[in-house]
Amino acid sequence: MIRFNSDYTEGAHPRILERLMETNLEQTSGYGMDPYCEKARGLIKEKCKNENLDVHFFVGGTQTNLTFISSALRPHQGIVSVDTGHINTHESGAIEATGHKVLAVKGVDGKITAEEVQRVYDEHYNDEVREHTVQPKMVYISNPTEIGTIYSKQELAEISEVSRKNNLILYMDGARLGYGLCAENNDLDLPTIAKLCDAFYIGGTKVGALFGEALVISKEALKEDFRYILKQKGGMLAKGRLLGLQFLTLFEKDLYFEISAHANNMARLIKEACIEKGYPFLTESTTNQQFPILPNKVLEKLKENFEYSFWQKIDEEHCAVRFCTSWATDINDANALVKAIKE
Amino acid sequence: MIRFNSDYTEGAHPRILERLMETNLEQTSGYGMDPYCEKARGLIKEKCKNENLDVHFFVGGTQTNLTFISSALRPHQGIVSVDTGHINTHESGAIEATGHKVLAVKGVDGKITAEEVQRVYDEHYNDEVREHTVQPKMVYISNPTEIGTIYSKQELAEISEVSRKNNLILYMDGARLGYGLCAENNDLDLPTIAKLCDAFYIGGTKVGALFGEALVISKEALKEDFRYILKQKGGMLAKGRLLGLQFLTLFEKDLYFEISAHANNMARLIKEACIEKGYPFLTESTTNQQFPILPNKVLEKLKENFEYSFWQKIDEEHCAVRFCTSWATDINDANALVKAIKE
Amino acid sequence: MIRFNSDYTEGAHPRILERLMETNLEQTSGYGMDPYCEKARGLIKEKCKNENLDVHFFVGGTQTNLTFISSALRPHQGIVSVDTGHINTHESGAIEATGHKVLAVKGVDGKITAEEVQRVYDEHYNDEVREHTVQPKMVYISNPTEIGTIYSKQELAEISEVSRKNNLILYMDGARLGYGLCAENNDLDLPTIAKLCDAFYIGGTKVGALFGEALVISKEALKEDFRYILKQKGGMLAKGRLLGLQFLTLFEKDLYFEISAHANNMARLIKEACIEKGYPFLTESTTNQQFPILPNKVLEKLKENFEYSFWQKIDEEHCAVRFCTSWATDINDANALVKAIKE
Amino acid sequence: MIRFNSDYTEGAHPRILERLMETNLEQTSGYGMDPYCEKARGLIKEKCKNENLDVHFFVGGTQTNLTFISSALRPHQGIVSVDTGHINTHESGAIEATGHKVLAVKGVDGKITAEEVQRVYDEHYNDEVREHTVQPKMVYISNPTEIGTIYSKQELAEISEVSRKNNLILYMDGARLGYGLCAENNDLDLPTIAKLCDAFYIGGTKVGALFGEALVISKEALKEDFRYILKQKGGMLAKGRLLGLQFLTLFEKDLYFEISAHANNMARLIKEACIEKGYPFLTESTTNQQFPILPNKVLEKLKENFEYSFWQKIDEEHCAVRFCTSWATDINDANALVKAIKE
Repeated sequence: MIRFNSDYTEGAHPRILERLMETNLEQTSGYGMDPYCEKARGLIKEKCKNENLDVHFFVGGTQTNLTFISSALRPHQGIVSVDTGHINTHESGAIEATGHKVLAVKGVDGKITAEEVQRVYDEHYNDEVREHTVQPKMVYISNPTEIGTIYSKQELAEISEVSRKNNLILYMDGARLGYGLCAENNDLDLPTIAKLCDAFYIGGTKVGALFGEALVISKEALKEDFRYILKQKGGMLAKGRLLGLQFLTLFEKDLYFEISAHANNMARLIKEACIEKGYPFLTESTTNQQFPILPNKVLEKLKENFEYSFWQKIDEEHCAVRFCTSWATDINDANALVKAIKE
Repeated sequence: MIRFNSDYTEGAHPRILERLMETNLEQTSGYGMDPYCEKARGLIKEKCKNENLDVHFFVGGTQTNLTFISSALRPHQGIVSVDTGHINTHESGAIEATGHKVLAVKGVDGKITAEEVQRVYDEHYNDEVREHTVQPKMVYISNPTEIGTIYSKQELAEISEVSRKNNLILYMDGARLGYGLCAENNDLDLPTIAKLCDAFYIGGTKVGALFGEALVISKEALKEDFRYILKQKGGMLAKGRLLGLQFLTLFEKDLYFEISAHANNMARLIKEACIEKGYPFLTESTTNQQFPILPNKVLEKLKENFEYSFWQKIDEEHCAVRFCTSWATDINDANALVKAIKE
Repeated sequence: MIRFNSDYTEGAHPRILERLMETNLEQTSGYGMDPYCEKARGLIKEKCKNENLDVHFFVGGTQTNLTFISSALRPHQGIVSVDTGHINTHESGAIEATGHKVLAVKGVDGKITAEEVQRVYDEHYNDEVREHTVQPKMVYISNPTEIGTIYSKQELAEISEVSRKNNLILYMDGARLGYGLCAENNDLDLPTIAKLCDAFYIGGTKVGALFGEALVISKEALKEDFRYILKQKGGMLAKGRLLGLQFLTLFEKDLYFEISAHANNMARLIKEACIEKGYPFLTESTTNQQFPILPNKVLEKLKENFEYSFWQKIDEEHCAVRFCTSWATDINDANALVKAIKE
Repeated sequence: MIRFNSDYTEGAHPRILERLMETNLEQTSGYGMDPYCEKARGLIKEKCKNENLDVHFFVGGTQTNLTFISSALRPHQGIVSVDTGHINTHESGAIEATGHKVLAVKGVDGKITAEEVQRVYDEHYNDEVREHTVQPKMVYISNPTEIGTIYSKQELAEISEVSRKNNLILYMDGARLGYGLCAENNDLDLPTIAKLCDAFYIGGTKVGALFGEALVISKEALKEDFRYILKQKGGMLAKGRLLGLQFLTLFEKDLYFEISAHANNMARLIKEACIEKGYPFLTESTTNQQFPILPNKVLEKLKENFEYSFWQKIDEEHCAVRFCTSWATDINDANALVKAIKE
């Protein structure tokens, strides 16, 4: 069986394991106060071209989201997200468990629009209801989205503008950020994201690391006492250097982007095979997740050798499924899938 | 100005104030452990024809909802509600503040259906997502709903059946229960509600009391230690007898139903005036809230003498508004509004 | 049986009930936005000699404490309190339920000292532990304390100074504030309290009202969006005017102080009877709660006609008990108890 | 500088890194549903001689504590712990942030006693206060304790008995469990702990792993839906196999015990050096943490080459400090410290 059902089926990029081996018996301080974390933080700030950022490392994405959101909001404040947003669907109510409502809105191609943000704002901040409703205070977006699409610079700039105008915090979940930044139609980069968002995280778990996410906070007011919340929510890794070492390895020679581009290339092979066969797609994705709509009998056949994720029933004879590639996808495996699709 | 904008613009039914006067200098135990609360609990159980119920008194509805829900659920469990449900819109995130997600679904005429409950259940309890999603564990309904409609016995029986089949708790918010039970098309009564629901509350604040809601718990497993949660959430009134005295007065001679019927009658006058003028309605309500769609120029004129609630813009020239009557509505005031509508 | 076991055994001062009667059928806005609340807020600000205060009305004390504290703190921050503090012992974990640790310290005569505040601060804000501990951010005091003692102006000024120096919020629980301000050895007043504390509440439930507490916020940063939290925690009374009317009645002609002084006088009678008999006291109280240490056989005898609260076993033959008087205590009842003690 | 200031200054035991290397490119399911986790769970159950246990893997200890505790308790329930307990002091209020009070009691040698558990129970479950207080529902102990002492089989049996009698959950934090089980005076083992406790965790982070704790739940009622809470609190590692692989390595050939014994041996060298020099100890520890009381001038000298933790000021000329050894402590380093102490 070859797995295309998720982007975290393997361990880590070999260079990361080597680095762990080399440094294994060194003695360092714990909790992220070691020289490797320090260097990794510096490198990320450099890549973002902004010295005035706070960088914190986490083990996983749900942890990052719940910690950041609960640190940033007062009890009556909520987060606007598209209804397909990860925090709204697949985090077991992690955000609500910290006390905050997710205000779900319909998106377009998995993305929120500036207009929608303004509409939600207006709906809640009017005198008829005001304090009887949750106060929208943060806008949560994922890039790429849960369905593989990406925000353009123009779209992000508009969302950023409407957020700042209304004093809303803009937060980007970048669990697959590498795959987004290396998409063929992408025009965003780290410095732009750091400028337009108040906080975002760079996903490592799905992009080459054993585990790890780097939260970058640019808005000054959100930095205060963050390490307290990190500890309180169980996110402060004792041997924090493990996170520093991984991000150092991923960003030192732009390995992060190199392996992201590879994953996207592998995904394109699968996409092109589907196009060639005339299969439609649920979404127009240019990243490592592809959502073709396939006949059930084709899916039955593929199932013999490949794992994929069921996504959505379309009609009695067709389903949308998800194929994920990653930094680790072997070209031979991708070609095997391509061949199987084309048959 | 005559107010039809809400059903809590006056104080309490005069008999309640008299009762408070008569008993004012008596000394009793606090926290709901006095003889009046004891009697009121007994009376409510009698009206529900079920000795095996627990009854707890609260000051207000949001407090009742948040206390009951947080007492009944474990941290990963959520509540299914129509999107117009009070807990989903007008409680400032009170439920989420106790850690629980409201799983909002579209309803029909403000009501949830048994089919929808089953659909939400199936969507969450499948092997692909299970523990990555919130676990639906409670169904929240209001009767009457936020838009004045009521559940039929048949509808409630179906929802009860699907809930029990799937081990979901069924909870009814009865902030305006009197108005529902006295509606012309109603076929529910207290014993049936106590049988079909696992818990529900009888609203006093909007039906004759100064304040007060009586929570009735029928499901055994939900009774344990409830008074701890009542205290913890700030809902245990020191001079608890004030609540007992009010519910005693409301239920001793069926005053509750008498005054509810009056409110519905007053609402019918307004409804008929609108029908006569050919104005459509946002919802088909038979209770004390009416939602006619009126021309803006009519609304402008009415505004000179009457207060109503803006509800929804329909088009450039029409809006839906809400007129509320209550136990306290004077027939002269109702007639004045009727006359003004007809002009 | 005559009850001296608590200060909320009766209803309300008669003038309050009269006021409710007179205004019963008036129509007003809900949620505390009516003219009576407006006037009551104005009157309280006048009594505090400070126009720049926010005043919010609550139904009960636990509700007030949990709402204010959860509104003021970020998730990692805690509240310093003496171990006998109401929030630490008798609120069923209400504060922790909003996510915050109560950092309990030993007090002196039920009171915290400025030195103790500084010690707790230093213990937590040092580099060895810092973000691994809860961050002390608020100091909670009660005046009078749970054991009847009161803070002097000097003591409060010192606590205020150490709090401000260390950027801690100072909050006073005034459930029995009237009894404190009318104690013979008191040198505090409302303007001083409003100046030295960042917030405090004036208790009505135990001092003449049916129910009600008036929270006064002086620190600017704590005012923002408070009504959201008030609503979210279930503390926003629908018919808010009931609270306004009561505080208006209590403060219009200084009724609050008049009835507080009466309660203290009644308590003094009891105190003097104990002194005369040579009974010692658990604490030196000058307010409406007295904690004499009595022989068990005397207590047995008293129990036939009087209710009191058991407080603490002293030895095999003696217990400390609590006698409470209130605005409603009849001098004949007090004299009956005095006589019984002296026998 | 040689670090004795904590037991997580290095990476992982080399066999663990080798294992990660060997399996790195294998494809497995995520979230702990892979064959390695399955095997590791089986092995741990085998070591506990009980097939009927649930085993869940976490990345860190605070995460384990907050997840288990919040899964097991209802909102009004609290946890009894000695005041030096990790959850009471060094988790930044993680437990309170999930809504639960830690009921801190004085311990003896860092340990709680059965008598103390009974006393706290009686104090809270009496009719005078009952629902106005937090309900004690869990007993939290650490073994070894924060100050290096261990529970005897007799002590644990007594605490277990009093807990079960009063329907309290007994939970053991085993962050350093290996060091406890390999102490010279230890008479506990895994099967006994699994029998006497309702849940406990086996610490990996401080005992040879890169990171990882294995929570073992024996009480049936605590098993339901645990994975939901694990996910919700951010504790479900995407590449869960990393945890399975580590615990497999640690327990396959009893490596866990072998390296724990080594750490204790290294600690004994340090202990003996102090005894030889006549230095007293803060606690009588037989595990990897030693707390000697040393003259300040000796400490100044040691500081030139060794890191240790400051623990407590004893008098103007002496401080208690902590020396930690671990699975990774080099005997040459230990000898260097011994030599320095003896000088």
